[in-house]
Amino acid sequence: MTKYNFYAGPAILPKEVMAKAAESVVDFGGMGLSILEISHRSKEVAEVMTKAVSLTKELLGIGDEFEVLFLQGGASSQFYMTAMNMLGAFESAGFVDTGAWSKKAITETMAFGHVNTLASSKDKNYNYIPKGYDIPSDLKYLHITSNNTIFGTQFHDFPDTEVPLICDASSEIFSRPMDMSKFGILYAGAQKNLGPSGVTLVVINKEFLKKQARETPTMLNYNTHVKKESAFNTPPVFPIYVSMLTLEWIKANGGLAAMADRNAEKAKLLYDEIDRNSLFEGAAATEDRSLMNVCFLPKNEDHTSAFIEKCAEAGCIGVKGHRSVGGFRASIYNAMPKEGVETLVKVMKDFESANG
Amino acid sequence: MTKYNFYAGPAILPKEVMAKAAESVVDFGGMGLSILEISHRSKEVAEVMTKAVSLTKELLGIGDEFEVLFLQGGASSQFYMTAMNMLGAFESAGFVDTGAWSKKAITETMAFGHVNTLASSKDKNYNYIPKGYDIPSDLKYLHITSNNTIFGTQFHDFPDTEVPLICDASSEIFSRPMDMSKFGILYAGAQKNLGPSGVTLVVINKEFLKKQARETPTMLNYNTHVKKESAFNTPPVFPIYVSMLTLEWIKANGGLAAMADRNAEKAKLLYDEIDRNSLFEGAAATEDRSLMNVCFLPKNEDHTSAFIEKCAEAGCIGVKGHRSVGGFRASIYNAMPKEGVETLVKVMKDFESANG
Repeated sequence: MTKYNFYAGPAILPKEVMAKAAESVVDFGGMGLSILEISHRSKEVAEVMTKAVSLTKELLGIGDEFEVLFLQGGASSQFYMTAMNMLGAFESAGFVDTGAWSKKAITETMAFGHVNTLASSKDKNYNYIPKGYDIPSDLKYLHITSNNTIFGTQFHDFPDTEVPLICDASSEIFSRPMDMSKFGILYAGAQKNLGPSGVTLVVINKEFLKKQARETPTMLNYNTHVKKESAFNTPPVFPIYVSMLTLEWIKANGGLAAMADRNAEKAKLLYDEIDRNSLFEGAAATEDRSLMNVCFLPKNEDHTSAFIEKCAEAGCIGVKGHRSVGGFRASIYNAMPKEGVETLVKVMKDFESANG
Repeated sequence: MTKYNFYAGPAILPKEVMAKAAESVVDFGGMGLSILEISHRSKEVAEVMTKAVSLTKELLGIGDEFEVLFLQGGASSQFYMTAMNMLGAFESAGFVDTGAWSKKAITETMAFGHVNTLASSKDKNYNYIPKGYDIPSDLKYLHITSNNTIFGTQFHDFPDTEVPLICDASSEIFSRPMDMSKFGILYAGAQKNLGPSGVTLVVINKEFLKKQARETPTMLNYNTHVKKESAFNTPPVFPIYVSMLTLEWIKANGGLAAMADRNAEKAKLLYDEIDRNSLFEGAAATEDRSLMNVCFLPKNEDHTSAFIEKCAEAGCIGVKGHRSVGGFRASIYNAMPKEGVETLVKVMKDFESANG
């Protein structure tokens, strides 16, 4: 039976990427050595790093106005690194609070400067993206979480402002084209749309980086990694390699515009069924629904475990919702084939026939 | 032709570990999923984490008086995290300066408290381990680099003091039994004796950790990771899994005492040839020679490239010395088979016959 992995992260990656990755663990590019044992200073690994950077730039449609880094520590480390590097003690950072991850970024930032939370959707358990708030023009930056893995919401339009955005795009990076001119920093833990856990993509506008606010320990300074092209110390070679393979796969499959089309089609299939089916309802406000993390609830709570069981029987795993929302969550990242979504939709229909 | 990988790091890992690791990238434990795509909250990954911790404790011969963490950021991040967590602004940390990595740890520590460099071997380009220095009893801790990858020196005896040691054991961890009662913190980047790059082992004495010196960003606080058993945020699952496989391999092959015997035998083979061969000489003081990184020099500098070429022809790769020392460096970690060292010794003998 084919298994469809709906986990929120670490998450599904393309089958072809897994196959190549496995091969490289035994013999990397015919070298007779595993990618796990090759020096990060070797020509072969240097090429992987260079290619990961150039594919990132090509797919995002950016040039030399941006630095592209592959760091360790996850998005959780970017919560404080963004503030430690960029926010002076007497400067203000704006935030839109769209849930658990935004709140963590806010908490870490408070140690370094002033936090101005411009809007929050906490009043409705974060089931929508706030709109219509004022954005002071003197903010050093405005931080947003562009896709909210837990609550299943997504910024379909970015805030209209001249203030540079810092964006946590962990759970949607490379799922759609973005207007990169708005971003001071875009960061993403790899383990949703990009690669395995253990590497974090950080894309920084060079002009923005010039406004660095303070000295930091060497490893926490973005410029350390800029100067050494993410190899100041030993980088996480294998997670970067797998990310590079995923970027190649995205390019070979039409780039971000094609990803966006496929993702919209898959999400429509699933949301249409949620809206049609008498046993389920969507968790997020319709206009702010995430195309990556589809959160939905049973109208009858007694159905929860039974439905998850039926999903598992059909090969659909990882469908259990996050405890903050309950119900179900289907993460349908780039690598989720349409067949996976169709299989889940069929389980929903069958479940309605049996229990409706 | 069998290739023998003498790189200093990322470095050779056991063939059996590579084979299992590759298998898990396609299908992890018969789950029908890759280890790269499984949630870190799944039962299966939780078991990997638990096993990595218990094997670490068993092999090091420690119990619940220590915490075992698997973090990101490399030993380079421990240079500042040790100081940020443990050294108050008015407290003193002692250091023994044995080369490049010690110096980096010293530099990062200076931002947080007082640094007292008790001894240095800089006068002889770090070719020995200082001895006979005084250790003030009021130090918060004494930091040492137990094996110096670049200069090929190793502490065969640890400093005789009641002051807790903080030890960077990156390039020798699990190569020999250690008296763990001396250590406040032992840390090691995985990519030499333990696993691929992307994970760092940090072993902390619980009593020592109680003397934490200041508040830090959440991700930089050891207690954050202690409380959540290294899964506060998404851990680097694959690097931890491969490390766990390596720990299993070490246990199956007799544990640290057996590793120490094998390593001593391999190092003797190589150092004996260096001392016998008329074309080479050892780089480090005899009594401080590293059993992990064997640094040696050509008596005639014109021989450098020719010898490296002969090594490569025989399948011995990564033998070029670090630029700070020149000549040659053969890293003979746990996973280097005796045959690898024998092959290198044969190349040395043949080279002498041809050029002596």
